[in-house]
Amino acid sequence: MSPLNNPETPNQDQSAPHPIRNGEILCVGTELLLGQIINTNAAWLARQLTLLGISSYYQTVVGDNPERISQAMTTAASRSDLIVVTGGLGPTADDLTMSIAAQVAGQSLVMHAESRAAIADYFHRLGRLTVTENNWKQAMLPEKARVMPNHNGTAPGAILEFEYNGQPKVMILLPGPPSEMNLMFQESAAPYLELRTSTRFRHHFVRLIGIGESAAETLLRDLIDQQQNPTLAPYASEGEVMFRVTQLVHSDSEPDNTAGLLAEIQSRVGEYIYEMGPRTMPVVVKDLLLQQNLTISFAESCTAGLVAATFGEIAGVSAVFKGSVVAYANDVKINQLHVPAELLATHGAVSEEVAIAMATGCRDVMNADLAVSVTGVAGPDGGTAEKPVGLVYLAVASPRGVTVRRLQIPGNRARVRKVSTLNAFDLARRELLP
Amino acid sequence: MSPLNNPETPNQDQSAPHPIRNGEILCVGTELLLGQIINTNAAWLARQLTLLGISSYYQTVVGDNPERISQAMTTAASRSDLIVVTGGLGPTADDLTMSIAAQVAGQSLVMHAESRAAIADYFHRLGRLTVTENNWKQAMLPEKARVMPNHNGTAPGAILEFEYNGQPKVMILLPGPPSEMNLMFQESAAPYLELRTSTRFRHHFVRLIGIGESAAETLLRDLIDQQQNPTLAPYASEGEVMFRVTQLVHSDSEPDNTAGLLAEIQSRVGEYIYEMGPRTMPVVVKDLLLQQNLTISFAESCTAGLVAATFGEIAGVSAVFKGSVVAYANDVKINQLHVPAELLATHGAVSEEVAIAMATGCRDVMNADLAVSVTGVAGPDGGTAEKPVGLVYLAVASPRGVTVRRLQIPGNRARVRKVSTLNAFDLARRELLP
Repeated sequence: MSPLNNPETPNQDQSAPHPIRNGEILCVGTELLLGQIINTNAAWLARQLTLLGISSYYQTVVGDNPERISQAMTTAASRSDLIVVTGGLGPTADDLTMSIAAQVAGQSLVMHAESRAAIADYFHRLGRLTVTENNWKQAMLPEKARVMPNHNGTAPGAILEFEYNGQPKVMILLPGPPSEMNLMFQESAAPYLELRTSTRFRHHFVRLIGIGESAAETLLRDLIDQQQNPTLAPYASEGEVMFRVTQLVHSDSEPDNTAGLLAEIQSRVGEYIYEMGPRTMPVVVKDLLLQQNLTISFAESCTAGLVAATFGEIAGVSAVFKGSVVAYANDVKINQLHVPAELLATHGAVSEEVAIAMATGCRDVMNADLAVSVTGVAGPDGGTAEKPVGLVYLAVASPRGVTVRRLQIPGNRARVRKVSTLNAFDLARRELLP
Repeated sequence: MSPLNNPETPNQDQSAPHPIRNGEILCVGTELLLGQIINTNAAWLARQLTLLGISSYYQTVVGDNPERISQAMTTAASRSDLIVVTGGLGPTADDLTMSIAAQVAGQSLVMHAESRAAIADYFHRLGRLTVTENNWKQAMLPEKARVMPNHNGTAPGAILEFEYNGQPKVMILLPGPPSEMNLMFQESAAPYLELRTSTRFRHHFVRLIGIGESAAETLLRDLIDQQQNPTLAPYASEGEVMFRVTQLVHSDSEPDNTAGLLAEIQSRVGEYIYEMGPRTMPVVVKDLLLQQNLTISFAESCTAGLVAATFGEIAGVSAVFKGSVVAYANDVKINQLHVPAELLATHGAVSEEVAIAMATGCRDVMNADLAVSVTGVAGPDGGTAEKPVGLVYLAVASPRGVTVRRLQIPGNRARVRKVSTLNAFDLARRELLP
């Protein structure tokens, strides 16, 4: 077994590796066939392959059945350069993927000492002194595998290079749980694939807020239809409007030719663009706060902590994030955020007046430079003719004063909370712009 | 073409229809292959087939490519009684599914007058007076199809009965947009399939916390291996350990025979079971609070609102949820939660002492019956030898007193926050048990 991601390591099978042009995704798991979980892995992996310039024509799901797993791997090898497999690497008797992949690649399973040590270490850190016998099974790996460590679990992954009908093939085996799969792909599989592909897609993402998807598409229709290199396409993203500008290149030194198209997009829909690049809305807000050496806090009613939790996903956010008050009950709004009781009595919790009082009160008690408040009717119950489900007021308090936004958000509870959260960050962003 | 769902209509091909025992799902769409949308249709249809007692062994995704669609339909017909196809029924030149299905079934396309009238009516109701030529294409259907009307769009669906290698096969063609697909399946496809199947599956879920997946499986190994009716199988669920008990029945009146197996599972791993049924951990906590007429609040540091946001996903939670303080900065812990400054100076924010002070302070300021606190090192930075990434202290304060839990959680920031959140609810749950 050879160390991973080391360009100095000679590739023992081929002096000049055959480039990978196309690949397919095989997901193993009876729970997928039963519909108990949604196959988010396939979509995530499909996006990664697309970004790497690898075309994919098939996705397949099979259960924990040895014949069908083997047959699906063979079928994939017969038509694609690359097979990316997820699932079935667990410790149980049902988890057969690694041993079947070894058979398909014509390799034996051997104990991989480093992986065994990593499993022991994982359980040690968990405070468990005994490791059950079936956990050691996860360290049995194909003899010529490039082993990919699992930094979010026990099952290591593997990259197998083998021949099928005289053609070089690559099979990449990843665990099924998304947190383990995503990290392992990014840390180990993507760097390997970057060395094995000759084309790349360079993507620029244009992120908009304050305009609907079809309205934005109408404004950009002719650019979308031109189908040049670079191309422009809408990019589906729940609760957000995004477009992707894609340039096909054959080497990293090829110059970026997207500037003209990006400038044209900017001239048409610039007022709605909050980012041309990889950053999400919360990251844009965090960066603005860091640059200006300011802090923020949140006062949330209907989002119930989702704004704070979304901000907390960002590593290192503590430099700008003081904290948040989730004021679901009215007495919490009164006691913790100093919202006057008579305001609540007169206008109700979902009102412009209470949104303003929550933001100013929060800024005060949290001793933060900015405070953003959210109060609304998330549904499904609690709506009235005057204040229907989806009515949300947001306010931002800053040294400049207070700004309010009123939204009527269509959709279910989850969507109302998600769109409210995005708008809470946007309100802060606009306050931080020069 | 024969009317749908009319048991009086004689089936012209077979006097006694061949029962459908197994089926597979084929999703057509380039946007799925590019990962631009997540394939929720496959999971939804898989659940419907399972409930109908139809086993499924494969799911396949192909793009809008005639050869690959045709080959995928033929492959499916070679191994399954039923093929459920979604996508590619739209009006554009890319939408090829219906004409290829007609070829595979050996039928010609003919204009279906009722569907043509339905399309005209649909556009009339939208206020559009002209229908573009490509919309009429959607009324061209296989000559022997059972036509399924689309009550959420323009594309009708079709049920095709045909022979492949001398075996009777059924292909069900549904539109891709979930709102159209779900309604058409429920209105038209499910009633057809109910007449063509003789079995059903009944599921019970057993949810555990405080034990690893492989340790739980070791304790239940012989039950899993017995493969009777009912069966027991592990059920993958990120951050949680779940098992599924499945009974195969031949009619809805057949009694539930899972009690014995469920009792045996209870006797072996009962101390770890928090639910035998459909409820998630936060819903179990909400129900316990409702039953006991108690309220809860949260004091969160490293989870940064994720506990509150997770609780807030539950509709109607406001009856038991007062609110939450996200105390990211130390001065918020001091000012909002009344954590003594000297405790923070002596023990640090990530300590048993501060977890206890956060919980008792939160219970006090929020005027709630219970308060749960979380403080830890979510990473990736901020860990030390003494307090490594993943070290988390939780505490629950209640009228009974205070309980603390110390965890060392492996994995990345997202996983540390997710497992901490699950444990915060579990701490509350144990406090609420009699």
